[in-house]
Amino acid sequence: MDKWDTGLERAGRFLVTMSELAQSLNLSTSTVSRALTRPEMVAPETLERVLAAVKANGYRLNGIAQSLRTRKTKSVGLIVSDIMNPFYSAIVRAVEGVAASNGYSVIVCNADENAEKEDEALWVLAERQVAGIIHAATGANLETLRALRGRGIAIVCFDRISGLEDTDAALVDNVEGARAATRHLLALGHRLVATIAGPDRLTTGRDRLRGFRDILEEEGLVVDEAYIERGDFRRESAYAAATRLLSLPVPPTALFVANNEMLIGALDAIRERGVTIPSELSIVSFDDVPWAGYVEPPLTVVAQPTEQIGRTAAELLFRRLEGDDAPKTVVLMPVLRERGSTAPPGADAREEVMRRD
Amino acid sequence: MDKWDTGLERAGRFLVTMSELAQSLNLSTSTVSRALTRPEMVAPETLERVLAAVKANGYRLNGIAQSLRTRKTKSVGLIVSDIMNPFYSAIVRAVEGVAASNGYSVIVCNADENAEKEDEALWVLAERQVAGIIHAATGANLETLRALRGRGIAIVCFDRISGLEDTDAALVDNVEGARAATRHLLALGHRLVATIAGPDRLTTGRDRLRGFRDILEEEGLVVDEAYIERGDFRRESAYAAATRLLSLPVPPTALFVANNEMLIGALDAIRERGVTIPSELSIVSFDDVPWAGYVEPPLTVVAQPTEQIGRTAAELLFRRLEGDDAPKTVVLMPVLRERGSTAPPGADAREEVMRRD
Repeated sequence: MDKWDTGLERAGRFLVTMSELAQSLNLSTSTVSRALTRPEMVAPETLERVLAAVKANGYRLNGIAQSLRTRKTKSVGLIVSDIMNPFYSAIVRAVEGVAASNGYSVIVCNADENAEKEDEALWVLAERQVAGIIHAATGANLETLRALRGRGIAIVCFDRISGLEDTDAALVDNVEGARAATRHLLALGHRLVATIAGPDRLTTGRDRLRGFRDILEEEGLVVDEAYIERGDFRRESAYAAATRLLSLPVPPTALFVANNEMLIGALDAIRERGVTIPSELSIVSFDDVPWAGYVEPPLTVVAQPTEQIGRTAAELLFRRLEGDDAPKTVVLMPVLRERGSTAPPGADAREEVMRRD
Repeated sequence: MDKWDTGLERAGRFLVTMSELAQSLNLSTSTVSRALTRPEMVAPETLERVLAAVKANGYRLNGIAQSLRTRKTKSVGLIVSDIMNPFYSAIVRAVEGVAASNGYSVIVCNADENAEKEDEALWVLAERQVAGIIHAATGANLETLRALRGRGIAIVCFDRISGLEDTDAALVDNVEGARAATRHLLALGHRLVATIAGPDRLTTGRDRLRGFRDILEEEGLVVDEAYIERGDFRRESAYAAATRLLSLPVPPTALFVANNEMLIGALDAIRERGVTIPSELSIVSFDDVPWAGYVEPPLTVVAQPTEQIGRTAAELLFRRLEGDDAPKTVVLMPVLRERGSTAPPGADAREEVMRRD
């Protein structure tokens, strides 16, 4: 191949397509191809026009595309739900570790718990030629997921189930985690137990609420719906929810918050109202945070095996890329970490509202 | 054009190049092109071979590339130094805001404070056709930065200066921030003042140490080099550094830590040795953290205008993309936030080591 050929092919995949160039010139693609690969076969004025268009349209014949080709960096995409949540930062690190050992780079997009942003991120990554995508699903965009997978991009979800058929997933047992948190509160003697749950459209939202309800029902306690608030896994929603809970005629003596960002919002509301943890209110949240041990009192949490979730998701993806197509879901176990934010209820706990049947 | 043509050109830029296909078949590129664009012009067995290779090599003739073409998502790249540091998460959010209002997506890479990973991230983003790159420079990779810029990719640095000529930068005044922190400690009466500085190769590392030294010298205090530790902006390095400082024959009564991640490492060491903040040791760090107010005692910090840094960096980038090539550096001011972790030194402060000249 002569230098034109080399340059064209390399540039072609990096900048504009040959057919775009041909269309702009009102020539057939094969004429353009010939002009660039075997210029001697094309009329001189046609060759001139093609070369002029190449320049005008941003083709680089010996430029960036060439140096890029020799590098051949391979990448996988990772879509997180909330870049501000340290859970996802830890996932990024874990995925990067596995990717690096497979010779891949990771490029990250933030969906911000927003279905439209997720859809855009999926397409952005697909266009950027990632071999596969790991994502914390918003629960929407099934069609896009199917389209990308149908076109050879491996898809793995983590944290939540996307609903995509036959996909791989790295999850934690959210029901069991919520059960452990709730069981812990009841074991301390609490009966006025409230929760700030996540959104119903997410498996993490639904399952953590289900675990909470399960234990109360198993213990024969009637669940007062006023004690069940729903947030969106962001701080502000939990601030509002906690404010409502603390304003109830009979406020709860214990609170299970369904994720770490909502915990911060709840803590703001609790502090603002001057409620003391744990003597007036015990609090346990789903998901540990790097600073849980530095807070006074240190926070009792249901810790997720975050590093393991990220690593598992990446391993599932690379298994797919190596040709293993059998769908696989790995469910990891969260673990209760008792610290100082939970304690038996104070003497003034009013137990009449949530009572044994 | 017939469907083959359309499919080939579009698929060609998405999956493998036509020349790769041709090489694998030991055919000329123009033969492959002809087989796909004008199949009637090619011998039937050649056509068969080409079509088989197309399938085997992952070409999609009517597939993803086609739908991608119509979407034309535009993107900018963002390289952060440490995805675990909430400072960078906040930067991602701010850059995304500006990018979205310009119709761009953001794809993020993590350099992990590592020059090699930064170099890889720069090339990965360039290959993924980003219009520009915003990065927190490791201080290396000048050649790569020049190469990418020479090829039309706009480059903006934030947080640290990359050293790239005529580039744009969104920075904070690190010297002034460190001066404010150190001035605060001296004003409280401390004379045994130590620091855990960042790495010398980063402007943030150098400038924050310079501000610390400046104030001590301006106040006529001799700086004991044993009180000056250097970390790498990660927790572990600061844990080790704080352990050394607390083991000195005459330990410091006040400590300035040069970033938020190192603060956590220092807090671990301080807690482990049972040192009480602030009565035995005052501590102030550069950079606020979302949880600084939840810790007991709440942490005194030099807060950066993080959102504004990210927004400024993005605005500088889009200004470049709109054709304004005049290099511009914006320096923003950090601000001291006094909380509970700094107080006058305890009665037993030994002032003989760091003394007035």
